[in-house]
Amino acid sequence: MNGAESLIETLVKSGVEVCFANPGTSELHLVAALDRVPGMRCVLCLFEGGVTGAADGYARMSGKPAATLLHLGPGLGNGLANLHNAKRAHSPVLNIVGEHATYHLKYDAPLTSDIQAISSAISASTLTATSSGTLAADGAKALAAAKTGMGQVSTLIVPADAAWGEGGVVAATVEPPPRAKVSSERIKQAAAALLKGNAMILAGNDATHRRTLVMAAAVAQKTGARIATIGRNPRVQRGVGTAIVERLPNPARQQIKALADIRQIILIGEEAPVAFFAHPNEPSVTSHQDCEIIPLASVHDDIENCLDMLMAETGASLETLKLQDLSRPALPTGALTPDSIGAALGALLPENAIVADESITVGRSLYKFTVGAPAHDWLHLPGGAIGIGIPLATGAAVACPNRKVINLQADGSGMYTLQALWTQAREKLNVLTLVWANRSYKILRDELSNVGLPNPGPTALSMLDIGNPALDWVSLAKGMGVEGRQVTDIEGFIEAVREGLAMNGPYLIEVVL
Amino acid sequence: MNGAESLIETLVKSGVEVCFANPGTSELHLVAALDRVPGMRCVLCLFEGGVTGAADGYARMSGKPAATLLHLGPGLGNGLANLHNAKRAHSPVLNIVGEHATYHLKYDAPLTSDIQAISSAISASTLTATSSGTLAADGAKALAAAKTGMGQVSTLIVPADAAWGEGGVVAATVEPPPRAKVSSERIKQAAAALLKGNAMILAGNDATHRRTLVMAAAVAQKTGARIATIGRNPRVQRGVGTAIVERLPNPARQQIKALADIRQIILIGEEAPVAFFAHPNEPSVTSHQDCEIIPLASVHDDIENCLDMLMAETGASLETLKLQDLSRPALPTGALTPDSIGAALGALLPENAIVADESITVGRSLYKFTVGAPAHDWLHLPGGAIGIGIPLATGAAVACPNRKVINLQADGSGMYTLQALWTQAREKLNVLTLVWANRSYKILRDELSNVGLPNPGPTALSMLDIGNPALDWVSLAKGMGVEGRQVTDIEGFIEAVREGLAMNGPYLIEVVL
Repeated sequence: MNGAESLIETLVKSGVEVCFANPGTSELHLVAALDRVPGMRCVLCLFEGGVTGAADGYARMSGKPAATLLHLGPGLGNGLANLHNAKRAHSPVLNIVGEHATYHLKYDAPLTSDIQAISSAISASTLTATSSGTLAADGAKALAAAKTGMGQVSTLIVPADAAWGEGGVVAATVEPPPRAKVSSERIKQAAAALLKGNAMILAGNDATHRRTLVMAAAVAQKTGARIATIGRNPRVQRGVGTAIVERLPNPARQQIKALADIRQIILIGEEAPVAFFAHPNEPSVTSHQDCEIIPLASVHDDIENCLDMLMAETGASLETLKLQDLSRPALPTGALTPDSIGAALGALLPENAIVADESITVGRSLYKFTVGAPAHDWLHLPGGAIGIGIPLATGAAVACPNRKVINLQADGSGMYTLQALWTQAREKLNVLTLVWANRSYKILRDELSNVGLPNPGPTALSMLDIGNPALDWVSLAKGMGVEGRQVTDIEGFIEAVREGLAMNGPYLIEVVL
Repeated sequence: MNGAESLIETLVKSGVEVCFANPGTSELHLVAALDRVPGMRCVLCLFEGGVTGAADGYARMSGKPAATLLHLGPGLGNGLANLHNAKRAHSPVLNIVGEHATYHLKYDAPLTSDIQAISSAISASTLTATSSGTLAADGAKALAAAKTGMGQVSTLIVPADAAWGEGGVVAATVEPPPRAKVSSERIKQAAAALLKGNAMILAGNDATHRRTLVMAAAVAQKTGARIATIGRNPRVQRGVGTAIVERLPNPARQQIKALADIRQIILIGEEAPVAFFAHPNEPSVTSHQDCEIIPLASVHDDIENCLDMLMAETGASLETLKLQDLSRPALPTGALTPDSIGAALGALLPENAIVADESITVGRSLYKFTVGAPAHDWLHLPGGAIGIGIPLATGAAVACPNRKVINLQADGSGMYTLQALWTQAREKLNVLTLVWANRSYKILRDELSNVGLPNPGPTALSMLDIGNPALDWVSLAKGMGVEGRQVTDIEGFIEAVREGLAMNGPYLIEVVL
């Protein structure tokens, strides 16, 4: 058994079921091992940003790490932006990065680079294997690092000779350390703070799933506190039968307004609210200067246990909690606008849908129209690096083959990683992509005045205009084997969405705004 | 004057004429400064791999650094693979990477990342500006680092408050240190080695330009040595009137064979030849074990001065040197194969063409058919990270608007950075893209047996097959505003190439193999 086979067998035995891959020469023994060791599905992406974004989407929906297979430093570099997003989403991801054979490194062949340095920017753990005999044990450790806490990005660098060398030894599963429990003293302090008035529970990450969010909402109802999420959580379960919570707006000024009356924020699986970007002469912190921040449970703590204790401490009950009723908007008529699009989505969103949301500006009004739709999952953009939507939807569809994935996709961001459409076609994934073709980096247009540049010149305007030439998304999709159509009015949008929802496979709608 | 304006004015005064950009919020003041300070052309790319690959192509053809404008760590990450290539091409590139405002960093907002760590993998110099008053001086230093030696990747990290803050001070140009001169003692040693017999001059980088290569060839002719280049130089000037040199094959086994009789290799602007990848039970070093490696001039040394001295030492003369004659193959008929494609290119290549070559496997036979074509430049892939061809052609066309750029493009590699086609359409660049649609990672198929895997299983084969579904490059190009057509026979290929050469603007031919 060579090192590669021992690694793949170890990972399969430890529960890794999927590998998103874009391999090169240095990874060929790992690819060959996937044939010899059954049990891991291998999904090819044509660009590494697709690989890593798909691994993130898979992890968010399955709760399990996928492996990625990446080619040396440049392959890891190409996957870096979506690994940044995975890191910020606290998604468990195990990167397997090929490296030159140990004895070949000193010759500084063309593809040699400092993989460790690149990895350090996005990985909680980076391990470099040193031999075929110890590769699988390193893999088991790297996998445990990926599963630590809510989840982490973990990178295993595999020299080619560690993969092809004989003497591989299958390793036992390494269990990650248990998630830390919140002390009863901190529970008491938080409960007391909640009862002071002007309090808010800010729930994030694992606290925004159906089961956890209703517990947090019950505590809020019992104590009279507000409960909110920030609009960039990895996975929010919402719609009929879920907890009713506020969503704090992302733009800093609006967030400051929303938090103006709050004097205690109890963080559960969330961090203190700050501005996404600094703006001249505006504060970085969006909570009131007199607001006390109470970090009750960190992202990686045991959230369910914390909420159990907090419910007991406050006497909260799930039985009296008001949950979201079915409340769909009517199908809209009139102009094609973000609001009419939101109403149409709210009217049509199918039960159990997974929404992969990289809408950026257009999406701001979509959320409120879907709050009363049948139960669904909403995947946000926690890391802020654009180019995640199409890969994220791809990975979510691999994780949940029996659910409809709807990718709400800004056009500028979509162009970063459009290659993932090909993987959707190849794997016949059930993804409906809605591209908001405003043909502009619209969010930057909005940001100009925020950063004190209300009167941009022609160069600046030209850098934010992506409409010359206009992108033709139907042709782009066709080029990668995905059917699609363009719509320019609300009637066409409704018809196309119905068509796309009825299909079992990828479909793309270019929505010209 | 704010910091951003002082930086842009400093760079313009120091000769930076072009900025390839994909900015975000943290770079908006830099974008605005481009309006207020005239003199720098700003070229938008829809993905950062396009930005950095274009900067490389521009640098190789102009000999000058372009600036890039990148958005925080994820933007630099997206540009990393082609910065790896630029580093290996010794191209002068000045990255300007936006960063959060200094006082905002401690809040670890979503887009915060370790830009310094990412940069360290590809930059010879990384500077982080600290204030608006010193930003321009840092910029002048960073530019000098880019211009050091043959050229380097240099990165300047610009916190948003250093850009928007007042008190910017325009800085004087900082000259890079002069390129080191080779000592006359080393020249004497090299001349003696050349006369020993079984010697080879291996010329690379700045030694493969028209003027330098004829000097090296004259020395070889005079001393009876062989002269060769490795097939991955950033820019080789070849065709009619240029020096006649061997090209060492890239595959290690073939390179070993080509070097079997050589006992002295004199390196001029080149490094000792090694295998691109290690293969089990094969040597890393491709020269004979008894071959002496004589590093005469390093990449960054003063190559022209070295060759002047070496000519004088050996008594070589340009006057008796045999140069390449015009010798085009006949237009081919018959099947569409790499050889017939090569013959067609050899017959049709226009004078002064710039060939941006990311052909990978298909391209191996194209080189020999074009050796006697009218004078042209050939840009190879020194770094080995795929996804450079389309951006490289884009940057070369920006540098040389009056020349025809021909991008020989493998399909698998082309999919990495296809977004650069849009920039070609937007800027109306004179680029003819020939996509070799073999619908496979063919080089990896070839590598399987090299690494000892002659019988790949279905998973491995599936990971190397990109034909399901087949990419439709004409639709992909159309989606980005570039006209194109598909050809399936040699007659169609010849007709389409003639059509593409006659156009003044971007055009794409999908060549189905």
